[in-house]
Amino acid sequence: MNYRLVLNSLGKALLVETFCFLPSLVVAFIYREDTWAAFLQVMLVTAVVGGLLSFIKPKQTHFYPRDAFAVTAFAWIVLSAFGALPFVLSGSIPHYVDAFFETVSGFTTTGSTILTDVEAMPKSILFWRSFTHWIGGMGVLVLVMAILPSVQGTSLHILRAESTGPSPGKVVPKMGETAKILWIIYITLSALMVTFLLAGGMPLFDTLIHTFGTAGTGGFSNRALSVGAYQNNYYTWVITIFMFLFGVNLSLYWALAKGNFKNFFKDEELRFYFFTVLIATLLITWNLRTEGIFTTIGESLTHSAFQVSTIITTTGFSTTNFDLWPVFSKTILVILMFIGASAGSTAGGIKCVRFVLIFKTIKREITRNTHPRSVETVKLNGRTVDEGIISGVMTFFALYLIIFTTALLAISLEGKDLVTSFTAVATTINNVGPGLGLVGPMGSFAEFSAASKLIFSLCMLVGRLEIFPILLLFVPSFWKKHSI
Amino acid sequence: MNYRLVLNSLGKALLVETFCFLPSLVVAFIYREDTWAAFLQVMLVTAVVGGLLSFIKPKQTHFYPRDAFAVTAFAWIVLSAFGALPFVLSGSIPHYVDAFFETVSGFTTTGSTILTDVEAMPKSILFWRSFTHWIGGMGVLVLVMAILPSVQGTSLHILRAESTGPSPGKVVPKMGETAKILWIIYITLSALMVTFLLAGGMPLFDTLIHTFGTAGTGGFSNRALSVGAYQNNYYTWVITIFMFLFGVNLSLYWALAKGNFKNFFKDEELRFYFFTVLIATLLITWNLRTEGIFTTIGESLTHSAFQVSTIITTTGFSTTNFDLWPVFSKTILVILMFIGASAGSTAGGIKCVRFVLIFKTIKREITRNTHPRSVETVKLNGRTVDEGIISGVMTFFALYLIIFTTALLAISLEGKDLVTSFTAVATTINNVGPGLGLVGPMGSFAEFSAASKLIFSLCMLVGRLEIFPILLLFVPSFWKKHSI
Repeated sequence: MNYRLVLNSLGKALLVETFCFLPSLVVAFIYREDTWAAFLQVMLVTAVVGGLLSFIKPKQTHFYPRDAFAVTAFAWIVLSAFGALPFVLSGSIPHYVDAFFETVSGFTTTGSTILTDVEAMPKSILFWRSFTHWIGGMGVLVLVMAILPSVQGTSLHILRAESTGPSPGKVVPKMGETAKILWIIYITLSALMVTFLLAGGMPLFDTLIHTFGTAGTGGFSNRALSVGAYQNNYYTWVITIFMFLFGVNLSLYWALAKGNFKNFFKDEELRFYFFTVLIATLLITWNLRTEGIFTTIGESLTHSAFQVSTIITTTGFSTTNFDLWPVFSKTILVILMFIGASAGSTAGGIKCVRFVLIFKTIKREITRNTHPRSVETVKLNGRTVDEGIISGVMTFFALYLIIFTTALLAISLEGKDLVTSFTAVATTINNVGPGLGLVGPMGSFAEFSAASKLIFSLCMLVGRLEIFPILLLFVPSFWKKHSI
Repeated sequence: MNYRLVLNSLGKALLVETFCFLPSLVVAFIYREDTWAAFLQVMLVTAVVGGLLSFIKPKQTHFYPRDAFAVTAFAWIVLSAFGALPFVLSGSIPHYVDAFFETVSGFTTTGSTILTDVEAMPKSILFWRSFTHWIGGMGVLVLVMAILPSVQGTSLHILRAESTGPSPGKVVPKMGETAKILWIIYITLSALMVTFLLAGGMPLFDTLIHTFGTAGTGGFSNRALSVGAYQNNYYTWVITIFMFLFGVNLSLYWALAKGNFKNFFKDEELRFYFFTVLIATLLITWNLRTEGIFTTIGESLTHSAFQVSTIITTTGFSTTNFDLWPVFSKTILVILMFIGASAGSTAGGIKCVRFVLIFKTIKREITRNTHPRSVETVKLNGRTVDEGIISGVMTFFALYLIIFTTALLAISLEGKDLVTSFTAVATTINNVGPGLGLVGPMGSFAEFSAASKLIFSLCMLVGRLEIFPILLLFVPSFWKKHSI
């Protein structure tokens, strides 16, 4: 890899991160919290290190694919490493590994936590914790691309490495423009959500926290009972609907904005996503009502729709302790964790479009088995999908499950029960947040060892960056200098 | 499909099954059990139905792929349906669905049971139960092919549909000869195992039962504590080694018999299988010893080697209640269930060779990601693997897990705990036998509803026939007459 180019880019990313601390510093001043010193120190350190690194001038500025993967992997690790500092310096999270876990969980929009008493935290710290969701959802490097013009020329590979889905589409031919348009859509939707929550009477601070958590599909809340704390159906439904909306491929909203309704409503991934949510919601509503978990259909539907929406978009809020739901409902939720929402959204998981392609490939394989000489291509939205993409999707699926299994094996050394171990790995690799058992919506990851927390952090990064950037770190030839 | 050809073939299969009842009838006479009447009645019914069906003469005798799939799927269902009759008619298993489950479990070499007191059963019934393992391991239609010369000409597709693995190799050019050679290898190994067990002093009846269970990788025992009942290290190790040997691709023994040692020892699947067993055994031995489950390294090793061997070959005997082992060991065992042993063996699971190909495809995908223009083929044992086979393997893997998930969802409606539900589906689809929780080595499937038992039966058939023959039954166009 091109070390100078990678270090230079990391420097730029750190400079952008310096500004990301600013809103939290303002919150500290507003609420007169003594965390302001911690934020100021961290900004200074980040600025200095970022500045020094960006003085390293690369001799060659072209991003080969492996350089893009390297920048992406290192940027996410380094930004999390610095992002963890306010927690430690303010004394809110005394152990660095815990703070690192919490920050990775924030940036990767997972929302798993090691905090056992979230309401005791300073507001500025809670703000920073949730703000990482909002930044991480769109991608920290996409933000850098949108802000710094100098990296806009050669950054297709970075957009690919950081975006979700098998073949991230460009919205417009220029990468920097694409990044900007996506950010505008993201900010617009976030602003809409803030408006709706404020209109319902939610305090501004809570509104911002839950909007960050929803937009990034992260799921950190400032309330111990998460969204359930409000006991307010209006909030529940507003958040349900916005979680669903943020699970849509953001570039589809660009089609909508340009009046291209057909592209929007006929999109096969959107349809798959919509019907999965619909069917899962109905099944769980039926199951909750017949098992007598709630007394009315309406209540069952509200909790079911919220939980389906929050799990498939891998947000991970909760309105109730779904760990106590019947096994059938819990099984559906665990399956939704792996499905995830749409490619090109802020969600984690395997993504709907991959399942659409997997089902189509399976259908083709069935035909091949009975009609061995048939030749059939797989089509998506009317266009033939390149065989390279299909084989990439199938390989991704296998690799994803192999990494999941490997992590599960490592975590099982802790000796926690099987359901806790299984769902803890599932919820981190899919960037959801809560699992079942000890890591259920009322639990936390606090009880795990430092080693396990680092493994979970790795899982979250693997899930957010869709494997390859992180996996390549373990391939020795990747570290070779200047090889192409 | 060609209905006349399918019905005619089913008739022949039933005629062969009639003879399969004979040894159990002899056992009934030897032990003077009044089950003889049941066996005689069933033989009569099977012979008459089989005879009548074989009178239907097909106008067209060529087996197209879909005819082969149809014969295979129906034969396994029909032979199980008739094979269940002795249990019901003798009164040993009063409910037909239970008897059907037990017979499917036998033929598919799964070894899951609904019996709660196996030692109370008549010997002839236990003999029949275990004998289905021995027949089912090699494949009932392969047996028909080996015995009846009339179907030998056009049966490549049947061998494919019934054998395990992505591309079943012919041992010799003629299919009928191949079937015969495989049966000779199978009988020779079985005879060797009988000799070893008898030499150690095991009673003849017990020897036959455990040889059938081992050869077919089935796992039914005549003892409530399975192999653990004997508390005999010699038996344990003999069975461990033979389970391992029956997990090897049987056609490799043909290479060995012809003196082709290189083909045997350099086989990549065999190596993967061997090292997986070795590593899993060492890890579990270490885990059992450090967690203090057994007091000596030797004892830990014996139980670990036995359990690894029995689970990866999907046999499913037990020497101890591994449901009480540490989570790390249990996680390894559940992973081994899905891996399974070698293609072309009697084992279930996904099979080692598929994992070898999956890992090689992943490696290629990593290279493609960093060097987009590279062109690389996947090789197995030095030969390039056809891209159709690779895409078939990747699709198989995805489809396998999707069917697993669907079945899990259906079973979770029972409301049993997650570990029981998950491992019950895993153990049946992988043809292992016991799972964890309620279906652990000391438990049974008795508590499940009739509907769930039928779903489990379907899972066992899906696993044994490697999906497609059973899946096609759900494809409407498959049922069309005479379409090619």
